[in-house]
Amino acid sequence: MINKQLLLRKRPTGLPEASTWELVENTVPELAEGQVLVKQEYISLDPAMRGWMNDVKSYIPPVEIDDVMRAGSVGKIVKANNHPKYREGQYLSGWGGVQEYAVTDGKNWYPVNPDLAPLPTYIGTLGMPGMTAYFGILEVGNIKEGDFVLVSGAAGAVGSVVGQIAKIKGCTVVGIAGGPEKCKYLVDKLGFDGAIDYKNESVKDGIKKHLPKGIDVYFDNVGGEILDHALARLRMHARIVICGAISQYNNKEAIKGPSNYLSLLVNRATMQGMVVMDYSKDYGTAAMQMGQWMMEGKLKSKESIFEGLENFHEIFMKLFNGQKMGKLILKV
Amino acid sequence: MINKQLLLRKRPTGLPEASTWELVENTVPELAEGQVLVKQEYISLDPAMRGWMNDVKSYIPPVEIDDVMRAGSVGKIVKANNHPKYREGQYLSGWGGVQEYAVTDGKNWYPVNPDLAPLPTYIGTLGMPGMTAYFGILEVGNIKEGDFVLVSGAAGAVGSVVGQIAKIKGCTVVGIAGGPEKCKYLVDKLGFDGAIDYKNESVKDGIKKHLPKGIDVYFDNVGGEILDHALARLRMHARIVICGAISQYNNKEAIKGPSNYLSLLVNRATMQGMVVMDYSKDYGTAAMQMGQWMMEGKLKSKESIFEGLENFHEIFMKLFNGQKMGKLILKV
Repeated sequence: MINKQLLLRKRPTGLPEASTWELVENTVPELAEGQVLVKQEYISLDPAMRGWMNDVKSYIPPVEIDDVMRAGSVGKIVKANNHPKYREGQYLSGWGGVQEYAVTDGKNWYPVNPDLAPLPTYIGTLGMPGMTAYFGILEVGNIKEGDFVLVSGAAGAVGSVVGQIAKIKGCTVVGIAGGPEKCKYLVDKLGFDGAIDYKNESVKDGIKKHLPKGIDVYFDNVGGEILDHALARLRMHARIVICGAISQYNNKEAIKGPSNYLSLLVNRATMQGMVVMDYSKDYGTAAMQMGQWMMEGKLKSKESIFEGLENFHEIFMKLFNGQKMGKLILKV
Repeated sequence: MINKQLLLRKRPTGLPEASTWELVENTVPELAEGQVLVKQEYISLDPAMRGWMNDVKSYIPPVEIDDVMRAGSVGKIVKANNHPKYREGQYLSGWGGVQEYAVTDGKNWYPVNPDLAPLPTYIGTLGMPGMTAYFGILEVGNIKEGDFVLVSGAAGAVGSVVGQIAKIKGCTVVGIAGGPEKCKYLVDKLGFDGAIDYKNESVKDGIKKHLPKGIDVYFDNVGGEILDHALARLRMHARIVICGAISQYNNKEAIKGPSNYLSLLVNRATMQGMVVMDYSKDYGTAAMQMGQWMMEGKLKSKESIFEGLENFHEIFMKLFNGQKMGKLILKV
């Protein structure tokens, strides 16, 4: 059986190019005792993947050159060789990588039920991005009813869930996103109190206008100048959750540090980084809570799904050019 | 009675000049009922004073043009007009400003005892700098036995106390200071485990050498590149205490933000600002504890004392040119 696999061939400087990866065909190996073969249906495309391509020490080792590109995924077991827990026909989500088939012993994979939620949701709102949002805004952001919350990358997979959870918890929520369509979506469909279109208006003025009393919690997915604008408007004892810095991931030069960081001192504020994997023992509880909110119509899940491993590069670039809404997913 | 007073005449751009202030003579006003007249003996010179000269919103209002330059001080009551608590001959410490005499109702002043500690100590290790060190490293830095602690501005009024408290608590402590004399002092006299002379060696290499396992707590008094070097060597769940940024206070351009701030994410670390006044209700407890450590010889207090209100500008500049050790004090 043939497996299409996307291999990392080069470490990009700046934006990745089509030649950064190569799609190759390899034969699926025989399953060892205790392994399963997963036919992958949906692959998660995340900004963090850009970081994993750099040869630097980080919270996870880089993807090695000529290895299958790392990615989360969801798919169906099409073969099992005496696996202690899983059997043919079951659905699993895990680190399947960018390929058609994944062979695994099931470690770090978990079963999902397509009758309870559509499969793409398990790599979106009920997957890593949703978990990141949940623990980031609740545990690190430590939001309380009445807080003024600002979220960047607000129409993305993480940001859209962050904002909705903050609304559920009784906060005033303003999102920053690119373009009128996304901003309208945040306010009209997700119930945000306001949205700032960073492509067409001043973020600085937008924050003043929508959050005239300042910011209690800023959830940062983008870094760069927007982080500085948020720092400039902190309230006392504000919390900044550093979840990502998508504006800086394709930099060819040094990352822009936040010039206004001394606002942390003036406002006795905290800036804290988070990595979702630290919360893995509580994923189950979070998934149950978020599933409940989804059933009650309080939490909406949005995916942009594009098809074809052969289109990987073009689809992946939508993370950075903004041509998607919510969670970006590749359908195999 | 004539009072020599130093008035702020201009808001400096960059380093203050002699003409930034003017020393004038005014008559001491009659005391109102409930006021005391303090003959000031020692005036505290602190890096924070540079910030108070800028016309910006901060944790404390700026000093107004033509007002007496704000400063902490210690002195003796030479006259009292029916004050409910204080009488002639008592010593007080408070916000006396840069002047010979201070008139006050005693609010935000507190009595000090020259028999228990030398007067300058009350504006140094037992005053604001000491309190800043105490609450900064214990409450914000949250040090634990065995932690690897890095302190910048380590030979200064705050840094030298931070390092000594961290040693008392069983941490490995490395200080960053300017020049071999200060570095030798940190290791030989204050018991630091290592010192990095930023004027004569690479701070980056020094951190690697002295703290090969990385940093649990970085207490930052300086900002700039040193903050970036510290960020680059954080351990998991590290804490950065933002106490000041003396390298940036006289900038004519924008403050340099920490390019390596994403290390907070990778290491799930926290960067938190502090202002000592928030802990004022616990100053008494802290002073008792620090006084005890001083009596036991575990905590050394170091002051550089220079005389004369007429030499204010030259003395003040020692904060920024490094020509002092420990707490900088002006003797009136």
